[in-house]
Amino acid sequence: MIRFREARREDVPAIVALLRDDALGAEREGAGLEDYYAAFDAIGAEGGNTVVVGEDGGRIVATYQLTFITGLSLRATQRAQVESVRVATDLRGQGIGAAMFADAEARARAAGCGLMQLTMNADRRDARRFYEHLGFTPSHTGFKKPLG
Amino acid sequence: MIRFREARREDVPAIVALLRDDALGAEREGAGLEDYYAAFDAIGAEGGNTVVVGEDGGRIVATYQLTFITGLSLRATQRAQVESVRVATDLRGQGIGAAMFADAEARARAAGCGLMQLTMNADRRDARRFYEHLGFTPSHTGFKKPLG
Repeated sequence: MIRFREARREDVPAIVALLRDDALGAEREGAGLEDYYAAFDAIGAEGGNTVVVGEDGGRIVATYQLTFITGLSLRATQRAQVESVRVATDLRGQGIGAAMFADAEARARAAGCGLMQLTMNADRRDARRFYEHLGFTPSHTGFKKPLG
Repeated sequence: MIRFREARREDVPAIVALLRDDALGAEREGAGLEDYYAAFDAIGAEGGNTVVVGEDGGRIVATYQLTFITGLSLRATQRAQVESVRVATDLRGQGIGAAMFADAEARARAAGCGLMQLTMNADRRDARRFYEHLGFTPSHTGFKKPLG
């Protein structure tokens, strides 16, 4: 039985391991943990920005980040943005992702958000069906620009 | 000469007029301003969330929202997310959009962000070339889910 809860500082190594254990993440994530700990502390100091983990018998098996963004557009709808979604490789296809998004949606509703949003790297073709099955519409194109 | 600055409360009606003066925005934005004022106040109370306006001789001619999001992924890169980009209909095609993104990028760099990101409704076909010209890569699919 997986329990979703806000991440604690001691979860950082397990979260980074999940971020790295991924076809796209392997080459993008670093080995040292200092920057990750600093970012985790900064997230904790920000209102409306949370890292959530899924824990199963003491093991961190999933993670996502949830950010509430107040905005003016769409009749001043508050948005809940999901980022950095990962499920442990050996546990995929068992419904953990869907349970994780149910958790995210419950948190978003509790915070008064009227819209959930996320972007997915277009190379993750399988994930597209997953998100559509959860009721998401792929209506947007997501652009990124690294600032060197 | 357009000057970009943080929006003030008295700019809210002009900002909402820009949001509404748009092919997609016309049907999505409401007539009353109360919710917009409340959201503006909430944005001001959040760290790292800002509405910017472009002002030309006392007229608000452009607006965007810039949100800094601390995260763990991508080696704990801080992201600058751009949302709700608008230029007055009668002033498009004059480089205001590019100037606005230069302003956003300067703010993002000053805040230490390593990545800029935005999503564009896939129906805005002209905007795609605009963002690619500015150095953005359309690498992602953006999903939305309204919470009714």
